[in-house]
Amino acid sequence: MKTGHIITLLTDFGLSDPYVGMMKGVIAGIAPEVPVIDLTHQVQPQNIQEACFLLQNSYRHFPTGTIFVCVVDPGVGTERLPVLVKSSEHFFVGPDNGLFGFLNTDPSKIIRELKNERFFRTPVSHTFHGRDIFAPVAAHLAAEGETILSELGPVRSDLVDIAGRLPDITGDAVKGKIVHIDRFGNLITNIHEKPLSELSFENDKGIIRFREFSLPLVSTFSEAPEATPCALIGSSAHLEIFIKNGNAEKTLNAQTGETVYVYKHHG
Amino acid sequence: MKTGHIITLLTDFGLSDPYVGMMKGVIAGIAPEVPVIDLTHQVQPQNIQEACFLLQNSYRHFPTGTIFVCVVDPGVGTERLPVLVKSSEHFFVGPDNGLFGFLNTDPSKIIRELKNERFFRTPVSHTFHGRDIFAPVAAHLAAEGETILSELGPVRSDLVDIAGRLPDITGDAVKGKIVHIDRFGNLITNIHEKPLSELSFENDKGIIRFREFSLPLVSTFSEAPEATPCALIGSSAHLEIFIKNGNAEKTLNAQTGETVYVYKHHG
Amino acid sequence: MKTGHIITLLTDFGLSDPYVGMMKGVIAGIAPEVPVIDLTHQVQPQNIQEACFLLQNSYRHFPTGTIFVCVVDPGVGTERLPVLVKSSEHFFVGPDNGLFGFLNTDPSKIIRELKNERFFRTPVSHTFHGRDIFAPVAAHLAAEGETILSELGPVRSDLVDIAGRLPDITGDAVKGKIVHIDRFGNLITNIHEKPLSELSFENDKGIIRFREFSLPLVSTFSEAPEATPCALIGSSAHLEIFIKNGNAEKTLNAQTGETVYVYKHHG
Repeated sequence: MKTGHIITLLTDFGLSDPYVGMMKGVIAGIAPEVPVIDLTHQVQPQNIQEACFLLQNSYRHFPTGTIFVCVVDPGVGTERLPVLVKSSEHFFVGPDNGLFGFLNTDPSKIIRELKNERFFRTPVSHTFHGRDIFAPVAAHLAAEGETILSELGPVRSDLVDIAGRLPDITGDAVKGKIVHIDRFGNLITNIHEKPLSELSFENDKGIIRFREFSLPLVSTFSEAPEATPCALIGSSAHLEIFIKNGNAEKTLNAQTGETVYVYKHHG
Repeated sequence: MKTGHIITLLTDFGLSDPYVGMMKGVIAGIAPEVPVIDLTHQVQPQNIQEACFLLQNSYRHFPTGTIFVCVVDPGVGTERLPVLVKSSEHFFVGPDNGLFGFLNTDPSKIIRELKNERFFRTPVSHTFHGRDIFAPVAAHLAAEGETILSELGPVRSDLVDIAGRLPDITGDAVKGKIVHIDRFGNLITNIHEKPLSELSFENDKGIIRFREFSLPLVSTFSEAPEATPCALIGSSAHLEIFIKNGNAEKTLNAQTGETVYVYKHHG
Repeated sequence: MKTGHIITLLTDFGLSDPYVGMMKGVIAGIAPEVPVIDLTHQVQPQNIQEACFLLQNSYRHFPTGTIFVCVVDPGVGTERLPVLVKSSEHFFVGPDNGLFGFLNTDPSKIIRELKNERFFRTPVSHTFHGRDIFAPVAAHLAAEGETILSELGPVRSDLVDIAGRLPDITGDAVKGKIVHIDRFGNLITNIHEKPLSELSFENDKGIIRFREFSLPLVSTFSEAPEATPCALIGSSAHLEIFIKNGNAEKTLNAQTGETVYVYKHHG
C-alpha cells in the first residue's frame, strides 16, 4: 500500500444485495490494508446524472490520492469504455458514460482505457464489471502504486459528458433542475452558488421559482418560515428547496429532473 | 493514532446521501489509520430522543477510548453549543441538544465547548457541522491524543437533557414510552429492567399494558404464543413489545412516543 | 492478528438499528486491527434460505482466511447449536440452522460447537447471540489464530441443511425457485448455470418458464427486448429473470419462493 491511497465506492447497487460486499472482498484480496469508504450505494438505479452530481460535490472532501470507484453502469457489457482517470489530486475508476464528464475541464487529467486483463478478476462477467474490472483495478493501483497506470491500456483524450449536466445560464436567468433528493426530502438542484453570485443575486434582487412557487432564500433551515417551500445554499454550495420541519419531496410530490428557475430582478 | 481510539458514527443522515461518506473522507484526511464504525445513520430525522436512547444502550459495547460522533442536529447553525464530552471511558462529540444528557450522572465527565477553529474544516457550513466541526474534531482527537482537549474551547459544567427521557416511576407503577422500533417491528421502550426488578416484577406479579393489551412477559421470542402481542427484556435490557413471527409495528400500527405502563400487582 | 484474517458479516438485522454496530464494537474490543466487511444486513427477516444463497454465491470472492459471521437466527435462545465451520479456505460462524448446509459437501470441513464461554461476551443475552457469541468468537479467532479451534467446544460431523435448497433436476427438466430479489427487481433463482449446461441448454433448445411466460435467454441486459420478461445467467452464475429498463419484481408482483422451470426441448 502506498500511503495516502484509500478507495471510495459510489454505486447504484443498494445495500440489500451482496454486490458491494463482493467488491470489498475482491479489494481485500488484492490490497488488504487499504481502507474502503462508502460514499453512497443508493443512487437511483441507472441515474448517471445523480451519481455524477454526488461525486462532483463530494470528492474534494477526500484526501489526495483517494481512488473513487464509481459504478452506475446501465451499459455494462456493451461498447462504453471502462476507464481510469487521474485528475490533479484523485483517481476515478468506472465506465466512461458521463459519470466523470466534469473532469474534462481539468487540464492535468490523464485517461486510460482499461484493457489489460492482468488487473482484472477473470473470467469477467458480462453484467458485473464493478466486481471484475473496476474494483480490482482500483485495488491494484492502491497496492502497487501509479507505476501501473501505463500498463492499464491506451490513453484517451476526453470523457463522455452528460447533456444538461449544468444549468442553462443566460444574461438574467438560470434554468436548472433537481438532480438529487436527500433523506430529509430536500430538493437539491444543479444550480451552484457561483452563477447565483454572478447574477448579483441577493434575497431582494432575485426570484427563485419552482412550479408556481416563488421561494424565499434563507441562510439556515431554522430561520425559514414554517410550512412554506424555501431555498438555501446547501452544504455542497448548490441551491436546495426545503420545507422547515417538513419534507419537500413528499409535500410537493417532487422528482429529480424537475426544472428550477432563478431570475434576476430588475428595478 | 493513539492505540485504542476508534471513531463511531451515529446520525440521522441515512445512507442515500453522501453526507456520511463525506464525514469519513474528512476523518481519513486527518486520521487515516483510525477505524470508523457506523452505529446507525437511520435515526428518525431529528429524533434526538431516539438517538440518545440508541447511544446510551450501545456505547458500553465499544472499547475504552472510542470517540462517538453523534449528529442529530435540528438546530444546526443556531445557538445550541457544539461540545466534546469525556466520560469515564469514552468520548462524545456533537451538538449539546440532549443527545448526551444521560452523561450528566457521570461525575468524572469533562465537557468542552468546541470553539477553536484550528480543529475545524473551514469555512464552516451553516447546515453541516457534522462534516465541518464534529468529524474533524474527533479525527484530531484520535490522531493527536487527549492533549488537544484543553485547546478545544471553554469548559462547561452540564449537558442539556431531554424532558421525558426516563420513564416516570411511582411506588407501584412505571409509565414509559416507545423510543425505538427495530427492523423486525419490535417496539422498544425506555423502561429498563432495573426499575422492573425493583418493583419485584415477575410474570405473575405485574401487568404490562400497551393500549388495551395486557402483555405476557416471556424470556425468549420462541416461547411466546403466536399472533399475540408479548413483552420481553431485550438485548439492551429494556422492555420490548413484539409479536412472534409477526411485526408488532405493522400489526398494531404503533409509533414511537406511545405510552407503555407496568403496574405492580397486589395480592 | 494473523495476516489474512478479515471478518465479513451477513445478517438480517438491517441498518436502522444499532445491532450491527454493536457487533463491530465487540469485535473492535477484541481484535482492533481486523478489517470488517459487510456482505449485507438486509436479508429478509428470518429467511435462512436467502442468506444461505447469498453466502454461497459470495464467499469465494473473499480472501483465504476470511471469517464469515452469519446471523439469521429465528431460533436464537432455543436448541439450535452455535457453530464454527472451517472449510478448505474460509471460516463460518453462526447458528447451525441451514445457513451453512452447502458446506456439507466439503470433505475437509471441521465443525465445532461453540460451548466455551471464555470466547463469549458474558452474560449472554437470550436474544442476541450475534453480539455475545458469534462476533466475539470470530474476533478471538482473528486475533489469536486457529489454535483456539480445539478449545471452542466438541467436534460435530454434519451441518443442518435446508429442504429445497437446490432445484429438482430430472432428465429433461429443472424445477427451481426465486431465492433472492435484487435492488433492480431482478428475480434470482437457485438454478445454477451448470445444470443448464448439462441439459445442453441453449437458447433455441430449451424453454424457461415462469408462470405463463416463456422467457428468452440473453447474455447481457442490453441485448434484451424492452418490456418483456427475459432470462440471463447473472454475475453469480445463476439464472435471473429481469425486464430491461424495468423492474421485474414490481411489474410481475413476484416474490421469493415462486417456481421457475427449465425444460429441455426435444427435436
